[in-house]
Amino acid sequence: MKTAYQGEPGAYSEAALLAYFGDRSSPVACRTFEAVFAAVETGECTNGMLPIENSLAGSIHHNYDLLLAHNLHIVGEYFLAVRHCLVALPGAALQNIRKIISHPQALAQCANFLGSLPGVTSEAAYDTAGSVRLIREQGDPQVAAIASNRAAVVYGLPVLAERIEDHPQNYTRFLAVAPSPVMRNGESKTSIVFTLRNQPGTLFKALGVFALRDIDLYKIESRPLIGQPWEYLFYIDFAGHVDDINCKRALEHLQEMAPFYRLLGSYARHCFDDLQEAS
Amino acid sequence: MKTAYQGEPGAYSEAALLAYFGDRSSPVACRTFEAVFAAVETGECTNGMLPIENSLAGSIHHNYDLLLAHNLHIVGEYFLAVRHCLVALPGAALQNIRKIISHPQALAQCANFLGSLPGVTSEAAYDTAGSVRLIREQGDPQVAAIASNRAAVVYGLPVLAERIEDHPQNYTRFLAVAPSPVMRNGESKTSIVFTLRNQPGTLFKALGVFALRDIDLYKIESRPLIGQPWEYLFYIDFAGHVDDINCKRALEHLQEMAPFYRLLGSYARHCFDDLQEAS
Repeated sequence: MKTAYQGEPGAYSEAALLAYFGDRSSPVACRTFEAVFAAVETGECTNGMLPIENSLAGSIHHNYDLLLAHNLHIVGEYFLAVRHCLVALPGAALQNIRKIISHPQALAQCANFLGSLPGVTSEAAYDTAGSVRLIREQGDPQVAAIASNRAAVVYGLPVLAERIEDHPQNYTRFLAVAPSPVMRNGESKTSIVFTLRNQPGTLFKALGVFALRDIDLYKIESRPLIGQPWEYLFYIDFAGHVDDINCKRALEHLQEMAPFYRLLGSYARHCFDDLQEAS
Repeated sequence: MKTAYQGEPGAYSEAALLAYFGDRSSPVACRTFEAVFAAVETGECTNGMLPIENSLAGSIHHNYDLLLAHNLHIVGEYFLAVRHCLVALPGAALQNIRKIISHPQALAQCANFLGSLPGVTSEAAYDTAGSVRLIREQGDPQVAAIASNRAAVVYGLPVLAERIEDHPQNYTRFLAVAPSPVMRNGESKTSIVFTLRNQPGTLFKALGVFALRDIDLYKIESRPLIGQPWEYLFYIDFAGHVDDINCKRALEHLQEMAPFYRLLGSYARHCFDDLQEAS
C-alpha cells in the first residue's frame, strides 16, 4: 500500500501521512499536488494525502480546485500540529548562524524568532524539507533551515532550536483521498461541493437545508466558477454521514436548488480537541 | 493626488488605477501590498488601489487579511478586463522566440498559447510588467514577456500577439481605499467583516439578516481567525448603502449575534455587465 504526498521526504505532508496511515502505507514523494492526484488515479498509489487548510494561513485553495477537477473520494482527515525547528549542520551553534532558509510561509510563521537573531538574513526556498537537504549538500555551517523535526531525522542533522513558530495554534488539516469511498467508521463528517443560481437569498436557503435539520456546519469555502465571473462554487463540510437519514434528506433538499452538486466523501471525523490537549 | 499600487509601472494594478481615477491621480509604485496600505496611512498617498479577486484564480486572500489589519475604508471598486499580450524586442518575430517569461499566474492563464509554440520554454518572473523591463534590459531578441498592453507602452516595446489568455472571461476586481469614507454616489455596495459564535446554525442566521430583508449578497469569503483554529472571519459584500434603512437594520441585527463586526465601506457599485459587453 503506497500513499502519495506533495514534497520531499521530511515534508509536513509526509509526517501527516505516516501519522494517519502508520505502518500500513509507504510514502511516495510527488513534485506537485496534480501529481498526487495522478498517482492515485493511475493506481500507482492506493491513497493520497493532501493539505487542505492551515489554521493561520487559511485554505489551500488549489487543492479545493483539484478535488473538483478529479474524481477521487475523501476517505479520511488528519490534523497535524505544525512545529517548526531550526536545523543545521553537525557542530553548528546558533550564535554562528548567518543565513536561514525555508519555504516563505515557514519563514513568515517564525518571524519573531528570526527577528531575535541580529545580523541573520532569511532566504526563500522551494520547501521546508528541501531546504534541509540543501544545507546538507552545501555544507556551510553558517546556514540553517526551518523545517519539521522529521526533516532533521531524515537528513540526519541536529536541531538547534525547537517550536520556533510565533503562534502555538498552528495546525494543518489533511485529507486522505482514494479511488473509492470508505465504509462508515465512527463519528462522521461529510464534504460536498455545489453551485447556486445567482438570485437573492439562494445561499441562505442552501444553508437552511442544514440549519433546519440541526446539522452542524464546520466550514464553508467559495471558489470562482470559471467562465461565470462573480459566481461561485461552494464547498461545505458538515457533521454526519451521507447515509444518516437527516443528512440524506438535507442533501436531497439541497439538490432541488443546486444546478451542480457533488459528494466529495463521508469519512471518520478526527477529533481536533484531543490533539490540541496532547500537543 | 497620489494613488499607491503594488507592482511596477505597466502593472495591471496601475492600469486599473488609471482607469478608475483618470487624470485626477498619479500612480505610486509599491513593492508589496503592505507598502500600499502604509503609503495611504502615512498620508504619502491619498488613495490605494488593490486587487481583491480574479474571476479565474479567485480571491487575493492576503488583501482581505490586510483590510482587517489596517484601518482604511473601501471607497470604490473597479473591474478590469485582464488581456495578456506577448511583448518582445523591436524586430523580434514570433517564430524566433525561444523563452517566455512572466508572473506564474499569467503563464498559467496563457497555457494554451504557450503550448502552441513548439520548443519554447517558459520561466517564472517576479511580475508581469517587471518581466517586460527584464527583457528590455537583457536585450535578447529570442526572449519575450507576457504582460498588459500598457506594460509594452511603458517600456516602448512592440506587441507580438494580443489576447493570448486561454479564457476570455478573465477579470480582476480592484478596491480603491482611503483614510476616510466617501459620500454616497449612485448605486451602492457595502463590504463588512464579522465573526460568529461557534454554534450550529449561526451562519444561516447571519445570512438571514440580509435574506429576510431581500438584500442581495454578492460575495462571501471566509478567512481563518488567528488563535482559534477552525473558526472564521466572514467577509460579505451586499447591495445597498450603510445609510439605507433596510441595510442599517440588517447590520444592527447582525451585530446582535456577531462577537466582532466592522464596516469596511459603502461605495459606488461598478456595473460589471456594461464592462463585459464593451470588452
